Amino acid sequence: MIERVLIIGTGLIGASVGLALRSSGFVGRIDGWDHSSLELTAAEQMGAIDGRAASRETTLEIARVADVVVLAMPVLAIKDWMQALAPIVGSGQLVTDVGSTKLEITELATKLFGGEHKAVFLPGHPMAGKESGGAMLAESGLFDGAMWLFTPVAEQPAAVEKEWRGWVGCFGARSLDMDAARHDELCAWVSHLPQMLSTALAALLEDTFGDAPEIGAIGARALRETTRLGASPYSMWRDVAMTNTQPIADTLLALEQRLTHLRENLRTPGLRDEFELANRFRRRR
Amino acid sequence: MIERVLIIGTGLIGASVGLALRSSGFVGRIDGWDHSSLELTAAEQMGAIDGRAASRETTLEIARVADVVVLAMPVLAIKDWMQALAPIVGSGQLVTDVGSTKLEITELATKLFGGEHKAVFLPGHPMAGKESGGAMLAESGLFDGAMWLFTPVAEQPAAVEKEWRGWVGCFGARSLDMDAARHDELCAWVSHLPQMLSTALAALLEDTFGDAPEIGAIGARALRETTRLGASPYSMWRDVAMTNTQPIADTLLALEQRLTHLRENLRTPGLRDEFELANRFRRRR
Repeated sequence: MIERVLIIGTGLIGASVGLALRSSGFVGRIDGWDHSSLELTAAEQMGAIDGRAASRETTLEIARVADVVVLAMPVLAIKDWMQALAPIVGSGQLVTDVGSTKLEITELATKLFGGEHKAVFLPGHPMAGKESGGAMLAESGLFDGAMWLFTPVAEQPAAVEKEWRGWVGCFGARSLDMDAARHDELCAWVSHLPQMLSTALAALLEDTFGDAPEIGAIGARALRETTRLGASPYSMWRDVAMTNTQPIADTLLALEQRLTHLRENLRTPGLRDEFELANRFRRRR
Repeated sequence: MIERVLIIGTGLIGASVGLALRSSGFVGRIDGWDHSSLELTAAEQMGAIDGRAASRETTLEIARVADVVVLAMPVLAIKDWMQALAPIVGSGQLVTDVGSTKLEITELATKLFGGEHKAVFLPGHPMAGKESGGAMLAESGLFDGAMWLFTPVAEQPAAVEKEWRGWVGCFGARSLDMDAARHDELCAWVSHLPQMLSTALAALLEDTFGDAPEIGAIGARALRETTRLGASPYSMWRDVAMTNTQPIADTLLALEQRLTHLRENLRTPGLRDEFELANRFRRRR
């Protein structure tokens, strides 16, 4: 029975996990830690966690006795915590994460966890978020209807892993297991490419127009939507780019070539073909 | 006093103009024509027009006696109607349009309209729309809060032009006058580039994944938003591409180069600079 959860990283996702546990009827204790005391205070005040660890060292002490440790921060920080946690957690305990890329985390988990007397590691990735982070934006319903991907290490799930998957289901999330490399390749297409595209477009417009008032005056929904992700924080995306470089580079190159093709066909039937393919893609969704 | 309005093209924008006139208190007659009898029927049934012209010829007859003729179709069709209308409308009448590009229309208007005994032409462009067209999606509030751009031909607005601008204000739209070439250049950035980008991305995903279920299963808000415009109809965008080719090609080339730069800097501080510029762009909005 999961009775004690420790959430390391109480930003948007971490604090939302705490709130979702509470609103799904979890009655155990939830401890939290974040290197930002602002995030930690916000998470505590909104009831996402019951108590805050006093330091990184205290957090490791709490991890010794927690049933589940949730790592909710950028990918490279997750890898650091995995190294710190591996020697001190053990049999019957679960460590899971919500990182955006899964191959490096899953490979590290195979090395550090899952042996005899060791804790179980379940790599996870809820496809939920907002363009801005922070505990203040956390919601108990953030995962309702969202997809929560897992890239499991163990062949046979341990009891504590099954129970945690049950809670994720209680949050309203659907879940899907997949290979970690395939996860990163697919996420390059559906998440990382849209992000990089939106960042590049917003950066280009900023360079071109700066504070010229015209863009604000005439820019409509199309512009707002395609640049919305431009508000995303570098702190998180740096780690995505670092841990999924080749798949992201591949999708970017493919898009560059596609835009060149479209540009060279603005006055030919090639443009119609592009619109027809795009229309077909949207009809499926 | 504007007492009779003729709307040629009763799709999303044309039918919304009819509905907006009615809900703003216009008590005169509104006639409509569309080459699609489905659109015409829908517009009539929802009360966007009082009566439907029986044919293109009847439409021209009605145009002779209308105070205002609104051309609401793709740009090349607008240019065709301008040619057909110029010889039959005259002094005191206003012809206006809602086309997406303005330079070719404004140049043609200068040739065909605005002289002695001639009708006045006011090139216009409401920055409102949806990713799908059609009268069925028309709304009386479509222009509420939107920007309605004008690229006027005449130095001194005629009385009928002033009165029409008043109605546009009653629709809840703000308006701004600008040079036609500048309009097309700015719209290439804020409207045409986002459209072409979204089309290219959706077409690329369709080619790459076809009906593979994974994309639908894991694609979240980022993907939905950045490909939403992929549903836009070729019929309208062909004319935009035809009449604003060079400005669109310039913005596409700039974006291609920006994406290349980002791709080459996925693991360098250059990525941080792009995110910072993009963040700054979004903070202004």
